[in-house]
Amino acid sequence: MRTLRDSGKALASRSLSASELLDASLAAIDADLARGGSTYTHIDRLAAREAASSSDAFRQRGYVPSALAGVPVSVKDLFDIKGQVTTAGSRILRDAAPAVRDAAAVARLREAGAVFVGRTNMSEFAFSGLGLNPHYGTPLNPAHAKRLAGGSSSGAAVSVALGHVAAALGTDTGGSVRIPAAFCGLVGFKPTARRVPLDGTVPLSTSFDSIGPIARSVDCCALIDGIVSGQALDTAPRALAGLRLGVTSDYVADDLDETVSTAFNRAIGMLRRAGASVERFAFPELHEVAGRYPLAGITAAQAWAWHREHVARDADAYDPRVLKRLRAGEGRSAADYIDLLAARERFVRDTRARLARFDAWLMPTVAIVPPAIASVESDDEAFSSTNAKVLRNPAVVNFMDGCALTLPCHREGELPVGLSICGPALADASVLAIARSVEVLLRHGETVVTASSQV
Amino acid sequence: MRTLRDSGKALASRSLSASELLDASLAAIDADLARGGSTYTHIDRLAAREAASSSDAFRQRGYVPSALAGVPVSVKDLFDIKGQVTTAGSRILRDAAPAVRDAAAVARLREAGAVFVGRTNMSEFAFSGLGLNPHYGTPLNPAHAKRLAGGSSSGAAVSVALGHVAAALGTDTGGSVRIPAAFCGLVGFKPTARRVPLDGTVPLSTSFDSIGPIARSVDCCALIDGIVSGQALDTAPRALAGLRLGVTSDYVADDLDETVSTAFNRAIGMLRRAGASVERFAFPELHEVAGRYPLAGITAAQAWAWHREHVARDADAYDPRVLKRLRAGEGRSAADYIDLLAARERFVRDTRARLARFDAWLMPTVAIVPPAIASVESDDEAFSSTNAKVLRNPAVVNFMDGCALTLPCHREGELPVGLSICGPALADASVLAIARSVEVLLRHGETVVTASSQV
Repeated sequence: MRTLRDSGKALASRSLSASELLDASLAAIDADLARGGSTYTHIDRLAAREAASSSDAFRQRGYVPSALAGVPVSVKDLFDIKGQVTTAGSRILRDAAPAVRDAAAVARLREAGAVFVGRTNMSEFAFSGLGLNPHYGTPLNPAHAKRLAGGSSSGAAVSVALGHVAAALGTDTGGSVRIPAAFCGLVGFKPTARRVPLDGTVPLSTSFDSIGPIARSVDCCALIDGIVSGQALDTAPRALAGLRLGVTSDYVADDLDETVSTAFNRAIGMLRRAGASVERFAFPELHEVAGRYPLAGITAAQAWAWHREHVARDADAYDPRVLKRLRAGEGRSAADYIDLLAARERFVRDTRARLARFDAWLMPTVAIVPPAIASVESDDEAFSSTNAKVLRNPAVVNFMDGCALTLPCHREGELPVGLSICGPALADASVLAIARSVEVLLRHGETVVTASSQV
Repeated sequence: MRTLRDSGKALASRSLSASELLDASLAAIDADLARGGSTYTHIDRLAAREAASSSDAFRQRGYVPSALAGVPVSVKDLFDIKGQVTTAGSRILRDAAPAVRDAAAVARLREAGAVFVGRTNMSEFAFSGLGLNPHYGTPLNPAHAKRLAGGSSSGAAVSVALGHVAAALGTDTGGSVRIPAAFCGLVGFKPTARRVPLDGTVPLSTSFDSIGPIARSVDCCALIDGIVSGQALDTAPRALAGLRLGVTSDYVADDLDETVSTAFNRAIGMLRRAGASVERFAFPELHEVAGRYPLAGITAAQAWAWHREHVARDADAYDPRVLKRLRAGEGRSAADYIDLLAARERFVRDTRARLARFDAWLMPTVAIVPPAIASVESDDEAFSSTNAKVLRNPAVVNFMDGCALTLPCHREGELPVGLSICGPALADASVLAIARSVEVLLRHGETVVTASSQV
């Protein structure tokens, strides 16, 4: 599959119809299935064919609702799609009633003309960052077959990486868009949570859940974000020269894989040579994330509130690794939870002040390269520690109520490494604008020259 | 003390100076003290004299910051006033450090030129509706000496009723402005919570706390509200003819004292004769307040989170009646609390829909007349049941995130009864505008004729 823009151009020039684009998509999906892929929990070929064919008919009559019209897109299995069962990668919800309406974000994609090919596989209930799923199979890393694709939006990333779709809609509560994007060498964008309505999704954390795309380029992500948020941002590339970028050695730089630190530092070097000011700064607030009030406790408490009735009825149907994480919220008192929410508010405020002098903050998206599936699948201790390490960096952005985009910064042949460009709440336009220039630099080693940098 | 407007006019005409107004205020306070009154936890005569004298000097030079300039005002003991200890009616905080800055609402009153005469007594930590206080004495009802003044802003209402001040600043979490206003025959306004910043106040419930005035007239309340909210609303009186008012027999009409139902129904009759449409309507959502998820549990959980360290150190210093209510939050789980917050959100949404076709919703502010102090002071069971009954009606407005104003609707010589005019969130201007006309009707039996009703 081409990028979304390329697909759009091919459709616009009539060199390709939406139905032909879908044929290619379904052929790629069939090839994946034939190899035993577990990218989807549900594929609806008939609905996709109808959507593609109406899209072609509309285009014939001159109606093209957006640049996404007629383009195949995948949707994570926790979004409601009218008429389909939302299982959120679980057995528990397998017999639930089909959704009576689309989730808000799905409805916006549908209005924009997207062709939904399938519901992507995920960590059960989105509650882990590795992508293991005992019910529907674990999607493997497309480029490194014995390694994980990352999660929780595992199938989402794989559906893009294998060329099934131009973009995948995922969710990100502690990294669930950015981790699989980074592990699969893709671009993933986690917007400021409040920008995209969560109606019609299975919640994990009402404090941290956010909805974002995984795609091949910043441009694709910006386009999808503009549609699902209902607010197309001005994301024209920003000149790298003179940008004030922050990098910290606190917390998110601890215990990095050497591959990760090498790729990250190489990217920093490129940014400096392109004229950006990259300042190392102290960021002591980050240590509070795991301090007296470990902010991840908020997610466990909120998830437990949602799941406890299901657990009471049917605990054995859960992935035991997920159940263990859910039960961490069971004994939490209301007073502790209230203190956690207050600590989180302080963290949001303090990080905003700490980052105020930067145009963006950079960090390695994930501290490690994609782990081998064998290292974690049958060892719960290893699962827990690896999962915690994978979530550590990206979750900081959810805790700070921020936004972030991950770009691949490894070289051809190396294991995938993501570079995250992060900002505080509602800095989405700025993060995307900077990401556009960083993307060009990392891909081609050259700087985008914009009008303002020519002055 | 005259109304705020009358005081302002006297000051403006130079027939009276702020210092003379303060002399009258302090003389009334001294007379109250001499009778054993427990209206205040702290009186700062020196600061008040300085403020009055500067106010006079400013006025001489033509600087009059607001209609409140030079007018004596009281402040509930849970607001920070720079240099004073905020005890919130407790022993626990008696040795706390003096506040280093004014609470936000206090700072706005100070900028407007208010002269603060004292910190008013209250139910300990604002956590009961009757006004009992074992540490500083229980303020008694000014018109009915063996009955209670109501709480938690007990001293606030008494300070107005006894003519010490033109207006009192209080807080309202479940009725704490409206109950003492109703019990003392005054006007009390509980604005939509988010309109007045809570910075610099001792919290009871972060979900329900709001800041509002007690005074002699709607006009006074509107003026104070405009200052403390930073947003003067258009509250020009609305014609009663044609108003759509709702009255329900669900929940808030259960088990009313006969004095209350008689006065309330008489007021409804006057409104009908003045041309308002008063519709009896079903309001089943109200029963959910005390149903599976009793929303008052939110307050207990939030209060416990704030108090638990104090309780661990010094439980014996608490009023045992308050401690018992605090401990109701001790065993609450985070999951239950999260469900309560969700139930509250549903309640806000459902009540807004239910009330959408009305200009305002009317109810008796409190189900009963002011109880005799002897009936509750030494009987904890009677305290609990009476307290619950007193809070029942007004708390509904906090639960629905609404606003409400209570007006006296009893006749001379009857025990005090309040009529509440209520609206959903941010209906403050409309509630105040309607209240202005209802106030005139109830006082003089006549209807305000406005431009629009003359058409």
